[in-house]
Amino acid sequence: MNVHTPDARGAFAVPTSMRYNAVENYIRNTTFDRPTLVLDTDIVAQHYQQLKAGLGNANIHYAVKANPTREIIETLVAQGSHFDAASRGEIELCLSLGAQPSDISFGNTVKRASDIAFAYHAGITLFAADAEEELEKLAEHAPKSEVYIRLIVDASEADWPLSRKFGCARDKALSLLGYARDLGLKPVGFSFHVGSQTRRSAMWTVTLDQIAQVWTDAHAAGFELDLLNIGGGFPAFYGEEIEGPTAYAAGVMKLVHARFGNVPRIMAEPGRGLVAEAGMIAAEVLLVSKKSNNDTHRWVYLDIGKFSGLAETMDEAIRYQFVTDRDHEDTGACILAGPSCDSADVLYELRPVQLPLGLKSGDKIMIRNCGAYTSSYSSVGFNGFPPLAVEVI
Amino acid sequence: MNVHTPDARGAFAVPTSMRYNAVENYIRNTTFDRPTLVLDTDIVAQHYQQLKAGLGNANIHYAVKANPTREIIETLVAQGSHFDAASRGEIELCLSLGAQPSDISFGNTVKRASDIAFAYHAGITLFAADAEEELEKLAEHAPKSEVYIRLIVDASEADWPLSRKFGCARDKALSLLGYARDLGLKPVGFSFHVGSQTRRSAMWTVTLDQIAQVWTDAHAAGFELDLLNIGGGFPAFYGEEIEGPTAYAAGVMKLVHARFGNVPRIMAEPGRGLVAEAGMIAAEVLLVSKKSNNDTHRWVYLDIGKFSGLAETMDEAIRYQFVTDRDHEDTGACILAGPSCDSADVLYELRPVQLPLGLKSGDKIMIRNCGAYTSSYSSVGFNGFPPLAVEVI
Repeated sequence: MNVHTPDARGAFAVPTSMRYNAVENYIRNTTFDRPTLVLDTDIVAQHYQQLKAGLGNANIHYAVKANPTREIIETLVAQGSHFDAASRGEIELCLSLGAQPSDISFGNTVKRASDIAFAYHAGITLFAADAEEELEKLAEHAPKSEVYIRLIVDASEADWPLSRKFGCARDKALSLLGYARDLGLKPVGFSFHVGSQTRRSAMWTVTLDQIAQVWTDAHAAGFELDLLNIGGGFPAFYGEEIEGPTAYAAGVMKLVHARFGNVPRIMAEPGRGLVAEAGMIAAEVLLVSKKSNNDTHRWVYLDIGKFSGLAETMDEAIRYQFVTDRDHEDTGACILAGPSCDSADVLYELRPVQLPLGLKSGDKIMIRNCGAYTSSYSSVGFNGFPPLAVEVI
Repeated sequence: MNVHTPDARGAFAVPTSMRYNAVENYIRNTTFDRPTLVLDTDIVAQHYQQLKAGLGNANIHYAVKANPTREIIETLVAQGSHFDAASRGEIELCLSLGAQPSDISFGNTVKRASDIAFAYHAGITLFAADAEEELEKLAEHAPKSEVYIRLIVDASEADWPLSRKFGCARDKALSLLGYARDLGLKPVGFSFHVGSQTRRSAMWTVTLDQIAQVWTDAHAAGFELDLLNIGGGFPAFYGEEIEGPTAYAAGVMKLVHARFGNVPRIMAEPGRGLVAEAGMIAAEVLLVSKKSNNDTHRWVYLDIGKFSGLAETMDEAIRYQFVTDRDHEDTGACILAGPSCDSADVLYELRPVQLPLGLKSGDKIMIRNCGAYTSSYSSVGFNGFPPLAVEVI
């Protein structure tokens, strides 16, 4: 399977073969009565293997939040994946589908105390924290557990840099390790996140330099750390060049080893990079219009929007690619919007999308590489629209 | 019931008595195991009566999308309310709870063709449109129906002005009326939306002036319009002064009558203004932390966030008010964030919130006036967190 065909420049790749995969054929030959995410778990398995080939002995902890569809978890359990869970709900899901407690980390730095207790009694022994109060909760409800401290990353070359919501500044890192030890926990290492959709491995350099300095300082201060959690950031193809998964993962590991030496345990938490390219959304055009007699662009309204699966269009961060049966026609600039009676449900306006001039109400429209951060984001029923349907082929 | 106590300036009002209402007492005396919206339908009925007292013979079409909870719809059916539906799902809901088809308008300007056909066969005869293609869909699937044309509003003094997503520019208004007539539909009038959370009736003046000009032009061109849909924009109390509901509605109607004379049919579509103050969310503090040793503010993480009910915090648009058991303590600036492992799930950061210095993990926190645009926005299970629970007392 040649998902990422190297382009003329060799190192980078564009997933050209995705254009004619099983998912797209299935959508072309199926009638849907509501927006539907169609997933191919074979692609998930392939991506797992491709990433694993580059990551070497680092463990993949799939970020379940990216897509908790049952068949994806089952596929990854069968592949030997580990899991990064954000909540009790995700832990229960993974356990119910055969994951071992020892393969699940509770990676949310903001946990409900009762959920910590649940995880502890379920046999989970590895937790994230970035604050004193979180360590106190862990000491009380998951005594003697292993904990890694999440650090804030200052510099990011990601398409979607993270906010400061997660992690502590580096000036607090060592005191939190010490506090964890004082509380009877086992401080085992650090985690960080390089930023969502970091398209090339070389973009990790500055962040890894920063984290390595803290790692060195911690060892110098007497902490015997053995775990480095390099988080997510593994990219998916949304139209801009990305490095292929194996080369990308190997590139990151090379940078890691050069700075951290042989760390006994390395964790990586791909979500988007594992599942985004495994699914396409089958959607429909509801209306094409012009607002004014002298408008230069058209408005295209789809039956899926910001509140029914395409939440990652917020601030136009993730730019999805669209496929229609009219892609041979001339195109024009379109503002793209969702179906709800919500003025904020506009997908792309600052940077309009080129779509065929003949596009009209009732036309099928396919949205590529939507396997991550779509179905679970969709609302329970805003405006009376049902949540995004999911089909696995 | 004295929801809006006039303040010293007479005309404007602050809902002081909300502080000790039944919802707040219920939350204080109840233990919740997940974030829960608690609703009091008596307040919905009161607000309906208060708005109706100011609106006179204008019909209230409740914007169902604001909160489709069954008991709210039942309360409003009993009050004699009409309904503005955004989708087939909302139409089915209203019909199943006793609303008459003749009291339901299909107000979404972007409708699936099959949903138009469903509505037509269910007996609904009044539809919105803002584009040629939408009129063609109506002519085919709801022949001879009444249609009103939605206009874009240029100027808005709303707290949350709408985008250009809905409506056509005024230069297209008359041609759309004509096209509707040519297609065999009955063009009956115009609609507009002054902008969400328009806090004082005087703020409607410029918009009404604009719409009245189009109305006059249409009559001069021979269109016998008899329906004016003034849309929503009716405010709720989020901490900034608003005009009380009866005075507000009467103020708007006075401006309308001065510009449009005696229009046979006037529709108003309050959503937020009817139900927001009827509910509070019971939530919990999960973590209080500082990111760095020299941070001047704290981070407070709640068990509810942008993807589990508080979507209207996007761009910090709606600023909710928080109540804790420590409100007598000194306060400090806090950045407020939700529980999900999503970096974008930060509620208030640009303008931090003052919260008690003693606030800590496990503390109950109540969020005022959350009856609108919360529960139906919440995700099906992002990060494994269940959707916002709803209880009606």
